[in-house]
Amino acid sequence: VSRAIHRSKTDLSASSGPIVAEIEAEARPQAPIERALAGWIATRSRSVLREMVTLVARPGILSLAGGLPDMALFPQAAYARALAEVLAADPRALQYQPSFAPLRDQVVELMRLRGVECSAESVLFVTGAQQGIDLCARLFVEDRSVVVHEALTYTGFQQAIAPFRPEIVAVPSHREHGFDVEALAEQLASGLRPRLIYVVPDGHNPLGVSLSLSRRQRLVELARHYQVPILEDDPYGLLAYDGDFAPPLRALDEDWVIYVGSFSKILAPGLRLGWLVMPPRLIPKVTIVKEASDLECSALTQRAVQGYLSQGDFPAHLARLRAAYRARRDALLGALEGHFAGSATWTRPRGGMFVWVDLDLARLGALAGDTAELLRRAVDEQGVAFVPGVAFAAPVGTRGRESGTSSLRLSFSSLSPDQIEQAVARLASLFTN
Amino acid sequence: VSRAIHRSKTDLSASSGPIVAEIEAEARPQAPIERALAGWIATRSRSVLREMVTLVARPGILSLAGGLPDMALFPQAAYARALAEVLAADPRALQYQPSFAPLRDQVVELMRLRGVECSAESVLFVTGAQQGIDLCARLFVEDRSVVVHEALTYTGFQQAIAPFRPEIVAVPSHREHGFDVEALAEQLASGLRPRLIYVVPDGHNPLGVSLSLSRRQRLVELARHYQVPILEDDPYGLLAYDGDFAPPLRALDEDWVIYVGSFSKILAPGLRLGWLVMPPRLIPKVTIVKEASDLECSALTQRAVQGYLSQGDFPAHLARLRAAYRARRDALLGALEGHFAGSATWTRPRGGMFVWVDLDLARLGALAGDTAELLRRAVDEQGVAFVPGVAFAAPVGTRGRESGTSSLRLSFSSLSPDQIEQAVARLASLFTN
Repeated sequence: VSRAIHRSKTDLSASSGPIVAEIEAEARPQAPIERALAGWIATRSRSVLREMVTLVARPGILSLAGGLPDMALFPQAAYARALAEVLAADPRALQYQPSFAPLRDQVVELMRLRGVECSAESVLFVTGAQQGIDLCARLFVEDRSVVVHEALTYTGFQQAIAPFRPEIVAVPSHREHGFDVEALAEQLASGLRPRLIYVVPDGHNPLGVSLSLSRRQRLVELARHYQVPILEDDPYGLLAYDGDFAPPLRALDEDWVIYVGSFSKILAPGLRLGWLVMPPRLIPKVTIVKEASDLECSALTQRAVQGYLSQGDFPAHLARLRAAYRARRDALLGALEGHFAGSATWTRPRGGMFVWVDLDLARLGALAGDTAELLRRAVDEQGVAFVPGVAFAAPVGTRGRESGTSSLRLSFSSLSPDQIEQAVARLASLFTN
Repeated sequence: VSRAIHRSKTDLSASSGPIVAEIEAEARPQAPIERALAGWIATRSRSVLREMVTLVARPGILSLAGGLPDMALFPQAAYARALAEVLAADPRALQYQPSFAPLRDQVVELMRLRGVECSAESVLFVTGAQQGIDLCARLFVEDRSVVVHEALTYTGFQQAIAPFRPEIVAVPSHREHGFDVEALAEQLASGLRPRLIYVVPDGHNPLGVSLSLSRRQRLVELARHYQVPILEDDPYGLLAYDGDFAPPLRALDEDWVIYVGSFSKILAPGLRLGWLVMPPRLIPKVTIVKEASDLECSALTQRAVQGYLSQGDFPAHLARLRAAYRARRDALLGALEGHFAGSATWTRPRGGMFVWVDLDLARLGALAGDTAELLRRAVDEQGVAFVPGVAFAAPVGTRGRESGTSSLRLSFSSLSPDQIEQAVARLASLFTN
């Protein structure tokens, strides 16, 4: 995949960027300091998703790739006002400061909106959901620990556990239900004892699907019974387009579920602010890991987000997000129906930003190679991008692995409905030209 | 120390805060999820320095404790203008974005001001210097690795390496020269092969001292000869009060020195922005660790800091910082001379924020116990705070350990010269009452 992106980038005569620089660096002979690196990192490369951020930022590309929220939907003016007010009034906004209690209280309200009752004492701010994931990995995972995630899962979780060289057990990613809870139950009954279970209950990344309420209940029962912590990653939990999602796992169990929330998708990623909800008695322990990581979250950002939320426009803002993304999801599903009916199957998400497409390779004879190879042609020939399924696969050799080579993840979050129709048409034309 | 702080807090009838909550949580019976924690964290507690942030935020305390820059010196209005301009003009400021190249160029200029020539390709932004330290620990340190730091060293480095359960070798902290380079040379000649060497070359934390140029040269020669990476932590490198510091280690070697810089002490900690300077070929590797940690630094913050630096006031701002902190350092050294001459010795820093005091216990018979116990009395009886030396000591059992029990770190950064005189007088009265 990395090579495919590199080539497509060169073909489009882009100026040198991080991807090219990385590949060139790797081609040079090793300097001694590279031999001083920790063993686990020698064989790691960057997340394809992160490389995509650079790739699709180029003009002319219609991107169904990265899960970037639409910049036009950011409450930029309102947030600017909030920042200005905080900086004019509060001299502590730029200082080292303890966690900002009024924002913790607002997170408690957000969690209530999501169906969870929790105390302010169970909330810890993190530098985006990715840090929440990383802190939990460091809290529960040790060298060579057994970790459970889905066969198709968010790359950021895989990156966070990689330093521990874990023994990964992948449970199937069901195209309608997501996390295959019964498959996990069987493994646990057979003696599997993981240190951590990772799950995205709604707006699944990459499938887009939601876990049913009964499967949520079963999953937390398993966690309680076998005493295994669950890391519940819920960045899309408020982006529901057909009525609210079922309550997250944290609403069903407060002892074994660590919940990760984020302002990135409901306000803006540039804030770099998210939160954990976890048993209060673990807060001192996770605080140790947080402080070792980056001391604390920006006092200014905490105060400005609190100020923005106090302005009272957030409910209307959330309604605007839902309406806009609902229309885009519908446009993507309609375009797939129009261009891929009979030659592919796809998920039908009730929220989030993603649709997962499994190509029927027998009927799509035009495709040489896999969807990573297809990406190169898509970018070069049609100026359209997606994420090849392989990006979400567990490392080769993982028990329960799915390769993802005939699949792709499409994001509907950053293009207009018309652009989405055009992008899918361009994609389809790869198979007819 | 933790208990001492707890008691002093209670004595002063403070409302319950993080410290009390932590201690109460630890007193409760363990819930099963605590048995699921990674082994290394079970025995860890929070950094005393971080607890201090809460303790000394209370009214009435004259704090010589935390290394907090003076809020009154933050360029708050100018930074507010920079933020407003970015948010009005740039829709990408709140989006996921690649590293902001114009700010990288400005960091190259800052490094030049510090005496270092480096390329923009060798710069990586981090969420404050602490993240720079953490990323380097993860890049070079593995389970049970040998790591070298000083007998008295910054707690944040100790926290960052703790998860690896390292074998720490502590070299003496010399009260005039800082890092005892010749002691390290002897250990290396005897076969010691560390994975990483940590050093603060100027404004040493906690000593306040600077490494001489000849010792810097010797240290990088050792790193090259024995092929050991040096992590050079330089948050105070531009805060020099008697003419510029000698060039940092990175100016003497670009292959084995990883440099960590920060905007926290020269602009404001609330930005949560710092940078690494390292061999460009390692940037793709450290980027993997950065992305696993928190994806990227805030695009908004990068753009606003770039905007602030473009306004052209930074040289004058830096001159104001130096003048203000120089006067405070002089006030502290004068107050020590006035109140502790003959009963203590102390360092005479050329920059930074700290003075280290070794009490002459024989002559200070009034002191029962150690400086951690003294802190309790200082806060309770005199409303003055410092950091007891033990906070900077390596774990018990470390080879080369110094206990720090008869020493204290005084910061002169956040009090006025008059307050500093008053604080030292209060401290001295503990020995005469």
